Amino acid sequence: MENTVNIIFKNESSADREQAVSAKPGDSILDAAKKAGIALDAPCGGNGSCGKCRIKIINGNVSSVQSRHISPEEYKNGWRLACAGYAETDVTVLIPETAAAWKNKIKIDNKSSHKLPVFENIDSGIKLIKITPEVPSVENPTADRERLLGKISELTGIGEPDITLYALRKIPGILRNGDFSVYCVLRCIELPDQTNSCTVIDVFPAGNNPAPVIAGLAVDIGTTTVSALLVDLADGKILASGTVGNGQIRYGADVISRIIESVLPSKNGEPGGLERLRNAVTGESLVPLIAWLCEMAELDSNQIYRTAVAANTTMTHLFLGIDPAYLRLEPYTPAFFECKSLCCAGTGLPTHPDAETPIAPAIGSYVGGDITAGVYSSMAFKTQEISLLIDLGTNGELVLGSDEFLMGCACSAGPAFEGGDISCGMRATDGAIEACTIDRETMEPKLSVIGAAGQIPLGICGSGLIDLIGELFRCGIINARGKFIREGKRIRRDEWGGCSFIAAYNNDASGGGREIAVNETDIDNFIRAKGAIFSAIQTMLKMLEFDISVIGNVYVAGGIGSGINIPQAVRIGMLPAIPVEKYHYIGNSSLHGAYAMLVSREAAAEIAKIGRDMTYIELSSHPGYMDELVAACFLPHTNGALFENY
Amino acid sequence: MENTVNIIFKNESSADREQAVSAKPGDSILDAAKKAGIALDAPCGGNGSCGKCRIKIINGNVSSVQSRHISPEEYKNGWRLACAGYAETDVTVLIPETAAAWKNKIKIDNKSSHKLPVFENIDSGIKLIKITPEVPSVENPTADRERLLGKISELTGIGEPDITLYALRKIPGILRNGDFSVYCVLRCIELPDQTNSCTVIDVFPAGNNPAPVIAGLAVDIGTTTVSALLVDLADGKILASGTVGNGQIRYGADVISRIIESVLPSKNGEPGGLERLRNAVTGESLVPLIAWLCEMAELDSNQIYRTAVAANTTMTHLFLGIDPAYLRLEPYTPAFFECKSLCCAGTGLPTHPDAETPIAPAIGSYVGGDITAGVYSSMAFKTQEISLLIDLGTNGELVLGSDEFLMGCACSAGPAFEGGDISCGMRATDGAIEACTIDRETMEPKLSVIGAAGQIPLGICGSGLIDLIGELFRCGIINARGKFIREGKRIRRDEWGGCSFIAAYNNDASGGGREIAVNETDIDNFIRAKGAIFSAIQTMLKMLEFDISVIGNVYVAGGIGSGINIPQAVRIGMLPAIPVEKYHYIGNSSLHGAYAMLVSREAAAEIAKIGRDMTYIELSSHPGYMDELVAACFLPHTNGALFENY
Repeated sequence: MENTVNIIFKNESSADREQAVSAKPGDSILDAAKKAGIALDAPCGGNGSCGKCRIKIINGNVSSVQSRHISPEEYKNGWRLACAGYAETDVTVLIPETAAAWKNKIKIDNKSSHKLPVFENIDSGIKLIKITPEVPSVENPTADRERLLGKISELTGIGEPDITLYALRKIPGILRNGDFSVYCVLRCIELPDQTNSCTVIDVFPAGNNPAPVIAGLAVDIGTTTVSALLVDLADGKILASGTVGNGQIRYGADVISRIIESVLPSKNGEPGGLERLRNAVTGESLVPLIAWLCEMAELDSNQIYRTAVAANTTMTHLFLGIDPAYLRLEPYTPAFFECKSLCCAGTGLPTHPDAETPIAPAIGSYVGGDITAGVYSSMAFKTQEISLLIDLGTNGELVLGSDEFLMGCACSAGPAFEGGDISCGMRATDGAIEACTIDRETMEPKLSVIGAAGQIPLGICGSGLIDLIGELFRCGIINARGKFIREGKRIRRDEWGGCSFIAAYNNDASGGGREIAVNETDIDNFIRAKGAIFSAIQTMLKMLEFDISVIGNVYVAGGIGSGINIPQAVRIGMLPAIPVEKYHYIGNSSLHGAYAMLVSREAAAEIAKIGRDMTYIELSSHPGYMDELVAACFLPHTNGALFENY
Repeated sequence: MENTVNIIFKNESSADREQAVSAKPGDSILDAAKKAGIALDAPCGGNGSCGKCRIKIINGNVSSVQSRHISPEEYKNGWRLACAGYAETDVTVLIPETAAAWKNKIKIDNKSSHKLPVFENIDSGIKLIKITPEVPSVENPTADRERLLGKISELTGIGEPDITLYALRKIPGILRNGDFSVYCVLRCIELPDQTNSCTVIDVFPAGNNPAPVIAGLAVDIGTTTVSALLVDLADGKILASGTVGNGQIRYGADVISRIIESVLPSKNGEPGGLERLRNAVTGESLVPLIAWLCEMAELDSNQIYRTAVAANTTMTHLFLGIDPAYLRLEPYTPAFFECKSLCCAGTGLPTHPDAETPIAPAIGSYVGGDITAGVYSSMAFKTQEISLLIDLGTNGELVLGSDEFLMGCACSAGPAFEGGDISCGMRATDGAIEACTIDRETMEPKLSVIGAAGQIPLGICGSGLIDLIGELFRCGIINARGKFIREGKRIRRDEWGGCSFIAAYNNDASGGGREIAVNETDIDNFIRAKGAIFSAIQTMLKMLEFDISVIGNVYVAGGIGSGINIPQAVRIGMLPAIPVEKYHYIGNSSLHGAYAMLVSREAAAEIAKIGRDMTYIELSSHPGYMDELVAACFLPHTNGALFENY
């Protein structure tokens, strides 16, 4: 008979909450955490390479190999990687703020921070009307349904309104509680013959009650981060907005590791990979986020009557519970580009049961609805001028086009811009270094950290990384290949032979108990990421025999911080050297496109059309792309002349 | 602290199955059975009047008042009424076949016993097609959905086919398991502009597999009995058919007692009345019936793609979980007459999740979809000739009309025709006396019992009762008021002062342990029921200033046996004295109408039209009806001349 050990997890940020799970001796702490449903950041999927799953052993014996991510002093103090630490006895584990960061806090955004498309006519198809049918009598005992719908028909001119079972169940009581005066929530659709039809999907007693709010939800499901806007569908105003980490992160940072996980079959009665991933994004991430938004707005989530979702192709597959296996097998075929008639009920979102969920269409396995929604929300492609949209998410996606053509591609930039593949990387939330400068002489950095005054740095996000590496290069601290070529107090050569630049010292033990540094591996990963972006731009331009100068405007989207330092990004050879005033940072364009789909049926139709009109370029099979990529993997580029003006 | 007693229920028909429940001393056995979810027949709702809940105490002490339903000898042997027996100690109870009869057995009908409407074109809107889209390639990596729908569009000419989430989840695997050859189940609809649209609701791998069956389900939900046909939607053929008692019977025999029960609020965490009644008809009756039918037909219930339901107004409310309270409160307003867009998913039926459920429309609180469906299936109202439809269910409903007008009413006949309100009454299943004659001299009866040869009689069903009372009257055993006026071996005067005719002796203890007799109360109840039918016919005719002779044909529907003896029914003054050849027994016309709705969208539309065209007559508020009723409550009638020719 096998022994079991007991593993207790304590959370740094909420010390009173602890969770216990039993495991077999020799099980990794990460596997035990997964089993317990505990959120540990493990973007590498648990192979020891990313160093994100740092935990501190408070009690008990954990065997572990040494790791470049844990210094000897840290090791002595009990720090381990959860993926490479194996419980030998009962163990108590402390999960630091950083390791749990993706889930720890739902971050509520400033409502006004969103640059949303503005609509003259808010037209989500969801409407509220007040109806006062005649009170039934012996002479006129018409049924409640026919009485209500007859009145709606009379008021709206719609021939045959209908009512859902959900609303039908409510009407006998509601009519009589509201003195035969009721608010009806209608879902309107336009029929092919241009006439309108509508269905009553909810009813509320009117009487002296105020009109109920009819709300909608716009959602962007990113590989790393999930964002949502709770919107008043009467006027399009934001009621609440927030972001939360995508709970799938513990299965790996990028879509490929998620797809690999999703095909694992169910075992020992536990759900298979697809179901676990679906639950990670819905049950663990969206459900609490929606609950929070509704709490903020003092709204019942049943009053969410429409949901619009934009996400990359893998995320939409996983969100809908559709096998994504064929996305990564040649010929890279998604299960669907569009999907029209879906109900939220099937997605597990805690909305009104009859809420519809338009989903932004994909155009290929690696250019998804986040991009078609982003193209719409950038409003960049309605002019003759040629525009470029760059979405810096966990991957990089690019769209080049005008009102005459649209072409989109994905480049394998990896998750560096969202803090993945970078030892001290993190997403752009409190504690992230989002900008920095370095003094050329002293090499002393000056950091700008997201959060309240006095916030100590916990890591570095995409925009901070661009700054830091740009500054290291500008100051001659690293060379064109990203290798350190200066010595100094901030430079450390470690026992593995690598070199690091220490951006922040470990002067505050509570700050995750570690210093913040970038090493040559981080810089390598970053150079590959920025090279992927630039070479993709070059390849698309060359396919069309265009010069960089044809680009009228560049729209940079993504959650990499409050915005990126464009000159810095050009100087390191990530973005093309066109005048800085042509660059526009547009934030989370995917979320903004989802908002457009939510509040405007016309916008939803336009986004569907964008999906059908856009040409998908598969870069990996494009001749010439590899040469471009190799040339771009230098600082700034093998052809430095491309960036001369900056 | 209160004591509890333990009550063990054993079932006569399956001795090995027993169920225990704890109760408080003094609780009735019926309440304990309800708590345990055990099916006891209690059409009177537990007030001691019907005598159906007879049980036998095997062990323990049960206090009880004497009852006319239990003879002194039976009392000595442990027989009690469950509703009037109160546990004083731990008790073991035997539930005899009769008390559990409503649920005990699902009865599978002879498929050929149904006189179903015949359609030249079976057109349920559910179609199966085989599609072989091109295999994806690097040159053509179109998504599975668009690939499949494009091919469907090409084959059918339908502009924009769609697919449900359920089917979408299946396609990536199914396409590749079937060598890119798939069977698609389509749900087709006609749009207002006369064009067609369709949605893929299921997919199966084709390859070398045979075509899957696309099935449908026609359901008649009666107050006492639930019947269903499992149908092949490709050709309209019946795959299996069966009936089962409506599990709601333990809350009372008629719709009024069900409505009263339905408004009881939830208590001690147990569901409220509405939910319990919904579950009684769906979870306890329809779900096992459907499982049985599918087992017979070797079909997965997920292959039921369309369900059509016909039921009276109260039953549709309860089936859909809609509060029926206002059906019995002036001005008697149903929650709905029609309902169009309902999905089976909301009804809890174990069918395909995207199956639609057309429901036959009601025209009033007491004339429901069973009648509109019945009008259609009788096909009687397509001619100029005036027809009369009489549905003898738990209530009696009548429709008078032609191709020019339709008028319907309900009469409060009560449940006598389905065996309710009759001490030895039962529904028309195995063991029911369905016909009889009596020798005028000897008064010896000759019984015809439903079931295999040698089946011992367990009770008497509607058609048997008409025969028995008709014969008692013909032989001068009872008078015009239903009182016994002869003496003899078969006549027993009991201690309560009443008189009974013993139709069968208790010569076989296993046959429920009792004799089968009708007493004067039974006869009274029956006379009121038959009087209600006849007086309703008279009232409708008089409203239109018609004589009985205008009636071209009479269609008698209902589950009262294999058919009723028409001359007998006329002689006792239940049916009008028109030539016997004008009478047609059409069986379960409600179920047959549901079948029509299931296999023909045109029929469904016609039934909807019947609902809108029919005038509802509220008899109770009609002047003259009460006089008619009083006159009809004699054998045959105060005006015997009306029945002279028979």
